[in-house]
Amino acid sequence: MKRELKGCIFDLDGVIVDTAKYHLYSWQKLASNLGFEFTEEDNEQLKGISRMASLEIVLAKGKVSATEAEKIAMCANKNDWYIEFIKELDRTEILEGVEELLLELREQDIKIALGSASKNARMVLEKLGIMPLFDTIVDGNDVKSSKPDPEVFLKAAKQLGLKPEECVVFEDAEKGLIAAKAGNFKCLGIGTDSRLSIADKQFPNFKGLTLKELRVFWSYQQNKRDSFTKIDEWKLIQDSFNASSNEIIESLCSIGNAQLGQRANFEEYFSGKTFSGSYIAGIYYPDKTKVGWWKNGYPEYFAKVLNSVNWIGLDFWINGKRLDLNTVDILSFNRTLNMKSGILSRECELKLSEDLIIKISSERFYSMTRKDIACLEYKLKVLKGNADIKCSSYFDLDVQNMDSNYDEKFWTDFNTSLSQNIISGEATTKKTGFKIGISQLNKIQHNNTDLNWSDLDMNDAKVIQSTNIHALESDEIKITKYCSIQTSRYQDKSLLIDKSKDSARLASESGFDVLTNEQHEAWSQIWSRADIQISGDVSAQQAIRFNIFHLNQTYDGSDARLNIGPKGFTGEKYGGSTYWDTEAYCLPFYLYTADQVVSENLLKYRHQHLEKAIENATKLGFSNEAALYPMVTMNGEECHNEWEITFEEIHRNGAIAYAIYDYSNHFNDDQYIREFGIDVLVAISRFWAQRVQYSEDLQQYVVLGVTGPNEYENNVDNNWYTNYLAKWCLEYTMGIIKDHHLDQSFQAKTQSLGLSSDELNHWKKISENMYFPYNQKRDIYLQQDGFLNKDLTPVDQLDPIHLPLNQKWSWDRILRSAYIKQADVLQCFYFFEDDFSNEELARHYDFYEPLTVHESSLSPCVHSILAAKLNRKEKAYEMYLRTARLDLDNYNNDTEDGLHITSMAGTWMSIVKGFAGARVKNGEFHFRPCMPDEWQNLKFSAMMQGDMINISLSQDTISFNNDSPNDKVVFVNNQKQTVGANSTLEINYQTIHNSITNEI
Amino acid sequence: MKRELKGCIFDLDGVIVDTAKYHLYSWQKLASNLGFEFTEEDNEQLKGISRMASLEIVLAKGKVSATEAEKIAMCANKNDWYIEFIKELDRTEILEGVEELLLELREQDIKIALGSASKNARMVLEKLGIMPLFDTIVDGNDVKSSKPDPEVFLKAAKQLGLKPEECVVFEDAEKGLIAAKAGNFKCLGIGTDSRLSIADKQFPNFKGLTLKELRVFWSYQQNKRDSFTKIDEWKLIQDSFNASSNEIIESLCSIGNAQLGQRANFEEYFSGKTFSGSYIAGIYYPDKTKVGWWKNGYPEYFAKVLNSVNWIGLDFWINGKRLDLNTVDILSFNRTLNMKSGILSRECELKLSEDLIIKISSERFYSMTRKDIACLEYKLKVLKGNADIKCSSYFDLDVQNMDSNYDEKFWTDFNTSLSQNIISGEATTKKTGFKIGISQLNKIQHNNTDLNWSDLDMNDAKVIQSTNIHALESDEIKITKYCSIQTSRYQDKSLLIDKSKDSARLASESGFDVLTNEQHEAWSQIWSRADIQISGDVSAQQAIRFNIFHLNQTYDGSDARLNIGPKGFTGEKYGGSTYWDTEAYCLPFYLYTADQVVSENLLKYRHQHLEKAIENATKLGFSNEAALYPMVTMNGEECHNEWEITFEEIHRNGAIAYAIYDYSNHFNDDQYIREFGIDVLVAISRFWAQRVQYSEDLQQYVVLGVTGPNEYENNVDNNWYTNYLAKWCLEYTMGIIKDHHLDQSFQAKTQSLGLSSDELNHWKKISENMYFPYNQKRDIYLQQDGFLNKDLTPVDQLDPIHLPLNQKWSWDRILRSAYIKQADVLQCFYFFEDDFSNEELARHYDFYEPLTVHESSLSPCVHSILAAKLNRKEKAYEMYLRTARLDLDNYNNDTEDGLHITSMAGTWMSIVKGFAGARVKNGEFHFRPCMPDEWQNLKFSAMMQGDMINISLSQDTISFNNDSPNDKVVFVNNQKQTVGANSTLEINYQTIHNSITNEI
Repeated sequence: MKRELKGCIFDLDGVIVDTAKYHLYSWQKLASNLGFEFTEEDNEQLKGISRMASLEIVLAKGKVSATEAEKIAMCANKNDWYIEFIKELDRTEILEGVEELLLELREQDIKIALGSASKNARMVLEKLGIMPLFDTIVDGNDVKSSKPDPEVFLKAAKQLGLKPEECVVFEDAEKGLIAAKAGNFKCLGIGTDSRLSIADKQFPNFKGLTLKELRVFWSYQQNKRDSFTKIDEWKLIQDSFNASSNEIIESLCSIGNAQLGQRANFEEYFSGKTFSGSYIAGIYYPDKTKVGWWKNGYPEYFAKVLNSVNWIGLDFWINGKRLDLNTVDILSFNRTLNMKSGILSRECELKLSEDLIIKISSERFYSMTRKDIACLEYKLKVLKGNADIKCSSYFDLDVQNMDSNYDEKFWTDFNTSLSQNIISGEATTKKTGFKIGISQLNKIQHNNTDLNWSDLDMNDAKVIQSTNIHALESDEIKITKYCSIQTSRYQDKSLLIDKSKDSARLASESGFDVLTNEQHEAWSQIWSRADIQISGDVSAQQAIRFNIFHLNQTYDGSDARLNIGPKGFTGEKYGGSTYWDTEAYCLPFYLYTADQVVSENLLKYRHQHLEKAIENATKLGFSNEAALYPMVTMNGEECHNEWEITFEEIHRNGAIAYAIYDYSNHFNDDQYIREFGIDVLVAISRFWAQRVQYSEDLQQYVVLGVTGPNEYENNVDNNWYTNYLAKWCLEYTMGIIKDHHLDQSFQAKTQSLGLSSDELNHWKKISENMYFPYNQKRDIYLQQDGFLNKDLTPVDQLDPIHLPLNQKWSWDRILRSAYIKQADVLQCFYFFEDDFSNEELARHYDFYEPLTVHESSLSPCVHSILAAKLNRKEKAYEMYLRTARLDLDNYNNDTEDGLHITSMAGTWMSIVKGFAGARVKNGEFHFRPCMPDEWQNLKFSAMMQGDMINISLSQDTISFNNDSPNDKVVFVNNQKQTVGANSTLEINYQTIHNSITNEI
Repeated sequence: MKRELKGCIFDLDGVIVDTAKYHLYSWQKLASNLGFEFTEEDNEQLKGISRMASLEIVLAKGKVSATEAEKIAMCANKNDWYIEFIKELDRTEILEGVEELLLELREQDIKIALGSASKNARMVLEKLGIMPLFDTIVDGNDVKSSKPDPEVFLKAAKQLGLKPEECVVFEDAEKGLIAAKAGNFKCLGIGTDSRLSIADKQFPNFKGLTLKELRVFWSYQQNKRDSFTKIDEWKLIQDSFNASSNEIIESLCSIGNAQLGQRANFEEYFSGKTFSGSYIAGIYYPDKTKVGWWKNGYPEYFAKVLNSVNWIGLDFWINGKRLDLNTVDILSFNRTLNMKSGILSRECELKLSEDLIIKISSERFYSMTRKDIACLEYKLKVLKGNADIKCSSYFDLDVQNMDSNYDEKFWTDFNTSLSQNIISGEATTKKTGFKIGISQLNKIQHNNTDLNWSDLDMNDAKVIQSTNIHALESDEIKITKYCSIQTSRYQDKSLLIDKSKDSARLASESGFDVLTNEQHEAWSQIWSRADIQISGDVSAQQAIRFNIFHLNQTYDGSDARLNIGPKGFTGEKYGGSTYWDTEAYCLPFYLYTADQVVSENLLKYRHQHLEKAIENATKLGFSNEAALYPMVTMNGEECHNEWEITFEEIHRNGAIAYAIYDYSNHFNDDQYIREFGIDVLVAISRFWAQRVQYSEDLQQYVVLGVTGPNEYENNVDNNWYTNYLAKWCLEYTMGIIKDHHLDQSFQAKTQSLGLSSDELNHWKKISENMYFPYNQKRDIYLQQDGFLNKDLTPVDQLDPIHLPLNQKWSWDRILRSAYIKQADVLQCFYFFEDDFSNEELARHYDFYEPLTVHESSLSPCVHSILAAKLNRKEKAYEMYLRTARLDLDNYNNDTEDGLHITSMAGTWMSIVKGFAGARVKNGEFHFRPCMPDEWQNLKFSAMMQGDMINISLSQDTISFNNDSPNDKVVFVNNQKQTVGANSTLEINYQTIHNSITNEI
């Protein structure tokens, strides 16, 4: 339930006024009277300590002993002195920003209370002259229990006539925050102490903590959900079962091996809310397009990722009743995804009746070494009582998609069989005719003794093996499933069953433990390259690993026909197809952490689709082999059907060209361009050359009717980013042709593409006369023509009730506002950073960032990287936080649909390109660190010229660990360094950095 | 099948060269030799007459007699002289434009042939020096049969290696055109003779008849369909049955009475293509919105007009076989809609077997006097043989909509009954809960003897009465159906059956003949007001009556809850709801031709919806009781769901305000404004005041993100028309408030609306500082910001293969082109004509008209009216022709879906406001005629101050016939005239006109 903000409760000391120094002065006076010195440093030990305990410390410092009575007198003296000091307080002692906030609160009729342990609170407020601003005061005189007991805050809320859920507590001490949390208040930590991070949000002080800011915080608190799993470095742990969030956990704990993947559905029957999904890479269905109003040129279908065979199926009837976690009494529950090993496990104790308690535990994974293999081990142990248990294990091919435009079923031609204890089946997708074969070897043991399945129930699409067991207390039943899923994408259709049978048998012969060991080993290798370690922030550590884990189980780069779907194997939304995200956001992750072939395969994916991209452009009226790559695709054909996106969001074509540059630059290698890239670059350049038009009025080339990366603008003229990309594509392609004009085989290639000098001259004319919207007064490139006609009120001045815009505003209102969904002009500054000075970047960042609402999961990472580049640590970290735990904390309220896979790569980028400031220029690595203050240490690896180099950052230093036999050149803050073979180099980047910063 | 244009076949005389004068000279020489004079006038009689017959006429003129031999000699002489003349021919004699076209054709490899009856053709071509341009020559020497036999053209085509369907024939004579048509050629008539109108298209000469023009013609011919009914002044006649066009005729011949209406479906069973539709005004279903990508703010439903009870049902089993026009042998067929009386009839002779021929004839209508009554008379006569005939008559409530988003059925809660020979039923719509009751009294006679129905078959939704008859040769069976349909919109739900029963019985007691007479009388009254008579153009006459007929049977203005659906009672497309068409295009028709209350009800319709319009605006983020009227509505709620239309095509709000002005101006009456109009005007003004935004950059108010009337632009900034309307609305509303500032009751009204002087001042500030896109160099208001960046190639320079754009181009290409769907800037010049000079109009017309593709049925009428205003007759007529027969000739290939009802009003406007130049200013009528050259006479009526005045125009004169007892003031070409009571005034407007024109 969402609530309004109705009250604010303030702690006194350290929040409204800094009285700590007067305590210090009082202790110092006592010490001085006793003949010794008590320093500010000594005083640190007294923080959060009672008065009497403090005295003991003071006396110990002076090596003074005293009787109890003397001690009581000393405390009284100390307090008297303190009060004397307090009496001198005046308005000037109010901490900066507090009074302004209090006045704003009163104006808006938000109630104000003091909730302080101090017994002198009223006097202090009187002295400060702000007593009248408070609706009520609760202080040390009014309560029995002190913080962290919530009494003081609860009493304050009650006196305001409010519920704790309607109030914010402002605290500067950990104990106070604990008290607030215990009382169910939202709380803000004021100060920089890391212990305050338990607050719902931390502010260093009240500067800038305006009512607006407070409302933003409140709105976020009302909208956000709690973490669904426990904070852990390596694991996602759900340790109590909540049926309402089951689908969210199913998404979060999805597992896969880049060929097969699955949501974390229960193996056994579950009558509650569940979204069953098992997916196979590259198997899709062309679902008939759904549209309200047809536009010429729309595609006929939207390619849907297919829910495929449910292989995990188990079913238990215990004393005649079906086991169902939705209806039994769950005594304990734990579902854990171990990201270190890629293994999903579950353990729970279930009370089926007063006399019958069982425990089930399961483990399953998709093998990273045997890509057709998935297996699971499931144990059912009787903890109390005994029971007749019918155990069934099955697979089912006749499954349906959650995401289907017309509720169609997508699979057909089922066929099942049993041979040599292996159950098999096959099915074919409608229309696309993909065929899969599954074989499953199901083993069952009763107290470690193998049993045979006594019953077999099969139809065309489903095979069930069953056995009845009478289980006594402490008996254990174990079912192990070895499953192979083969597809016609890799095998002859007639061999699918045989291949899968052989493979399943082989897996069973290896056994679950061996397969598990292989799995550990495989993931260990992945992590050795791709891991990022963050010290000092477990939540951030978990988040980045979560992102890296999912990226790796979604795509391994072994098959150039595959790509990185927006939901990977975790859901069906967005059709699981390919977007420009791959080129703009995902490629760098694979460039840095994987073998070259992985990135090359991502490029080849588009090269394979070139013919389709040309067809697509032709359909839209282009000629001369111009190519427009689709907005969304599975096999190269356009799937998307919103005219403003499909036809107009053409900057994607530029990102695809940019990826070719990115790759070539990263590996300092132009072989790919010469062999394949040039085909794509020429076809894309031809597109731009036709898509521009010459404006007689402007005497320049314009690009009309486009949608930029900021999809909160549609059908605009001259989106600066798009125009820039168009010009860049033409120039880059021309540059390559020029650079290789002496290369005969390359010459032959360009000739075969029919490139004439006339055509190149035309490109040149366009690129030299491209129009860019610009405002002289502000010295700013405009996002598009007419941008300055908009209302430029920054987001933080917008009442948060309007956010998120995409849920609160009608589309036209969004469009005519200046608010930006995701980096657009700034995307250009990110891609082409060397074309602009830091001053230009700062100017544009300061203009566009305040207008950006980041309502795309892809937005904050670019802003984070650019903020880091500008050495704006806080902003960079703020932006980072908006992306890192997006799915884990269900920030967008859509995790149940699946995870935002492509934005995960953006999170990775925020760290490596942002905080570490990593860049590659012609194959050479540059670093310009900008570490968040919150982190102590950051470690990651990067593949440099084929060798894995470990990089570690502290607040001051960057160190390189080069285990390879090759020297490595790196640049830190532009200074060239060499990391010797098999050696480590540590550099204090702060000193260099400062000198660099001063240079600018 | 569409074909390419591959060949052109030219007649010689009068096409390529004018040799007619040489024939005249030769005859004159003969006459002169015989001693008498033969004039050019005399020569007229010789046209299209053989040489010998011509001689007889010449000799008769001179009263000369001659023997047969002498006559032969005279003919030979005449021919010799003729040849002598011909020998003198040279290049200068080629008719203007011909050679250019021939050269263009050759360039484009289009074959050229001559197809002439002349025996001297080769010589003529030699003399003209254009022989080499011809691929082949077929002349009088090569053929056996002369035109109108197609031999000459067929031979020419064959020699070109082409099929007739691939060639165009150019002819100047009716016989030549007949020959071309007989040969299946497309043909162009060259010349102004009205007999050439049988050509597929007529051109006065070759000036401007370029290859482009020819291709436009060809493209049109390939795309157009033939007229589906015969040309007749009062009737639509289909005189042979073609199953493939059945649905088109069903639309064209729809009948209705403004409360009930129906497509021209057959009464009896038909297994062929048919689109059954019976509709009831105001009965709708909120069909769940269908959409590809949901946008915030979209409505939940689209209101669908409902197919309702099928009351015409008859069914015949003849000798055990069901009568079905789709399978029997149709000997003759005639389906006729008589627009004069609103009666639909059919007559056909059917051969059921060698021994059995029958004739069926039917008549039916919806009573214009008894709005719940529909009746039909159906006769089946045995012409040959005899037969056992099972006759059934029924109604069926369980019908389905053709237009349904999710194939739902929309009716429920059926109930049927029989009492006192009347069969009754009731049904209720889902969701909306409209209830209807139907009662039907079915009479059957055998040879004029009443029979009883012997069988009754009923279920919840359908009641069938049947009787078996043994019919002998010449026997006649007659079934008469008297049907009453009552709805809960007018009656208590519990009384529907009783009311309908009483009404049906009453109708049957009156009898079919009396009801028919009532119908004739009612339509006669309508026509006396609304008819337009055009002399000299039967096709145009039929077309305008067709339009007037449908407008009158769609809406009669008796119920302010009803409006004019885009398809009326003729189909279901566009939801049958209300669009801005009503205010912008339909209102003037009712202002001129109906009682004031009819127009007032159209305004009240919107007034009733004001609350919903305010809700709608509130939903989109507006406040302070601002109203945004829906784009499409049934009950005031928005139905449409395309963001660029629904949210952005806001000029509709302006048209609704304009209609209030239009009405008040027409009747010179502000009572409506004071009582109701002001509510709407204030709410609309409040909308504009919030929808504008102040541009700091321009220091003016702008309107961002709109779609103008030209829907080929979306989400543009500062559509000039919209900005103009916004300013006008504010000023008009402020003006009214100012004008009535002494009126106390009006003051109370505006106070109750909460209008403050602050608000009015804000409006004033906006209206005084509105921004208008304008280009200094061209002195042109721009359709929107950035319009001049577009490619401004006019439509006529566009290869016609691209037309219509909405079928050929993808949406983005349309959007970034300059092509205009319908009047936009020019709509403003139409609405606010007095704000602009004729020079300004001409300048804008010349800029925007060439860019307009008229791909909306509402476009040409405005262009026609403005062209007439500019005295550009040809353009005005060209535009008129594009709208007048739109449906009759199925120009847009969608007549089967129903008729374009609202654009019919536009056709009416083209005549009255265009050709007659009628305007009303403060209740006074002005005329500035601009008659098409093609028309001899134009007559129409207009209600002037409550009296019907007949107006008649010739090429020179306008005359007014005032039968009323009141003098009438009219202005003709700005000159004030008075038409006395009971008198007629004729004025030569040409003389006045010319003086006026000269003044400018």
